[in-house]
Amino acid sequence: MNLTSLTSLGCQLAFSTDSYIVEPIFFPGGNIGHLSVCGTVNDIAMSGAKPLYLSASFIIEEGLPFEQLEAIVVSMAQTAKQAGVQIVTGDTKVAPRGKVDKLFINTCGIGVIPDSINWGAKQIQPDDVIIVSGTLGDHGAALLNIRENLGLDGHLVSDCDCLYPIVDALLPLNGVRALRDATRGGVTAVLHEFATVSECGFTLEESSLPINQEVQGVCELLGLDPINFANEGKLIAIVSKQDSQAALQAIKNTDIGRSAAIIGSVNSSGRIVVNNALGASRPLELPITEPMPRIC
Amino acid sequence: MNLTSLTSLGCQLAFSTDSYIVEPIFFPGGNIGHLSVCGTVNDIAMSGAKPLYLSASFIIEEGLPFEQLEAIVVSMAQTAKQAGVQIVTGDTKVAPRGKVDKLFINTCGIGVIPDSINWGAKQIQPDDVIIVSGTLGDHGAALLNIRENLGLDGHLVSDCDCLYPIVDALLPLNGVRALRDATRGGVTAVLHEFATVSECGFTLEESSLPINQEVQGVCELLGLDPINFANEGKLIAIVSKQDSQAALQAIKNTDIGRSAAIIGSVNSSGRIVVNNALGASRPLELPITEPMPRIC
Repeated sequence: MNLTSLTSLGCQLAFSTDSYIVEPIFFPGGNIGHLSVCGTVNDIAMSGAKPLYLSASFIIEEGLPFEQLEAIVVSMAQTAKQAGVQIVTGDTKVAPRGKVDKLFINTCGIGVIPDSINWGAKQIQPDDVIIVSGTLGDHGAALLNIRENLGLDGHLVSDCDCLYPIVDALLPLNGVRALRDATRGGVTAVLHEFATVSECGFTLEESSLPINQEVQGVCELLGLDPINFANEGKLIAIVSKQDSQAALQAIKNTDIGRSAAIIGSVNSSGRIVVNNALGASRPLELPITEPMPRIC
Repeated sequence: MNLTSLTSLGCQLAFSTDSYIVEPIFFPGGNIGHLSVCGTVNDIAMSGAKPLYLSASFIIEEGLPFEQLEAIVVSMAQTAKQAGVQIVTGDTKVAPRGKVDKLFINTCGIGVIPDSINWGAKQIQPDDVIIVSGTLGDHGAALLNIRENLGLDGHLVSDCDCLYPIVDALLPLNGVRALRDATRGGVTAVLHEFATVSECGFTLEESSLPINQEVQGVCELLGLDPINFANEGKLIAIVSKQDSQAALQAIKNTDIGRSAAIIGSVNSSGRIVVNNALGASRPLELPITEPMPRIC
């Protein structure tokens, strides 16, 4: 990689790593390979970086059918191409049967942050607005349905996708404070991270949350909250009130952001609460245990 | 990471990934954490790059004793400090008991290659000289001893170490063609890779190979060849005949290169052979199967 050509894009390098151990390795809406490209591209992009290069490292259980590995690798190549990133280095290890469950993939990503961009939770201020880029909980609900054999029909599909087009659309706006992809732990985990760093409070309006009917159905069936569910193609953007409508429109103009919505606002209380449709409010606590292992 | 400060070191970025699944996770001379830093730092350094930044991603089996994880992480920090690299990003996944064997670690590395350096197997030419930076087979023999309960005494110790000091010592020499750390598959694997790319032939002098007495003992006991054994702190350097003595001396002047030796030469035959002490020669084939899984 040529450094002098990289510096034409900006002066800060972004670097991120993620290991993917999702179970099952094929699921409605994606597979572990597709996820391993989207997930790391999204991590990089949340800093405002244009994702450029990926590594891919495979730990394969002895006996994994070759056709499955091939389908996963082909899917990674297609996803990388669509996302405009190159997979430039890799590694393969084979572990004896029973020492790893089918296939784990690690990807690392490198990207470049434009000079003008300094997004981060420390920039968040009272009166900012909370935007979500689309429906919540699709990945978690799709995995739950297939893992727990709930037998619900085919509309429960993971939202696994690359989020850079939304980031690219937001780069020109001055009022963007921080972005985060709402993966493990969902919106709840993101807001808790933001609250810890910024010392701000966050209020969500439950009736504004975009949630697919099928996901709502699973949640009502099991008494779970889609705000805690994992997403793999949704981000939370904190934006100044002044730029909030422009940001919402910019996100809605992308293919993957058509269901974007303003879902709440920032204040100085330091507390995270959800207002329900009847006007009552409840604190949004972090779940005590991981609702489901191996979600990503 | 600031790109403009990186470009002061050179104009090419080096990027590498490796997943470590070594078993056992603690072994004489190191542990999986120490190995995961040295291994990736070495991969980066072989291109002539100064290793700068690492990622670290952990896949942990539920129930792994915390003290073991802590000892491994402390060891990674110490090794990174000694190697002058910063671990700047990380990830942790926990898999249920029985879905991963104790602990796997992935590290990725970023380094910068000085402008004047263009090392690689394509640069190798007939009449070049083959240098090894020290004794062969220590890591493989140490793992074999502990894994197969051979019960040999404590002198079988992995050579796991960071090789950048040797690289740094070789950078000023014009005659350096290519470096490679002789890990999985040992010297045999390195020479086969070099032969494929360069279309040159390689001749080793068996009596010149530096091999510890204890490693020689294990090999004679089991009928194995130390040339095929894994090393984790040894490199092969291909250097012009003219610069070979200067290169040998530069390597010997480093703490980790004191047992370095010239072990053979390059020719135009395309074949890889070993001459034994009696003057007979045999072809050096790649082993048909991996001698031991989970060596790194």
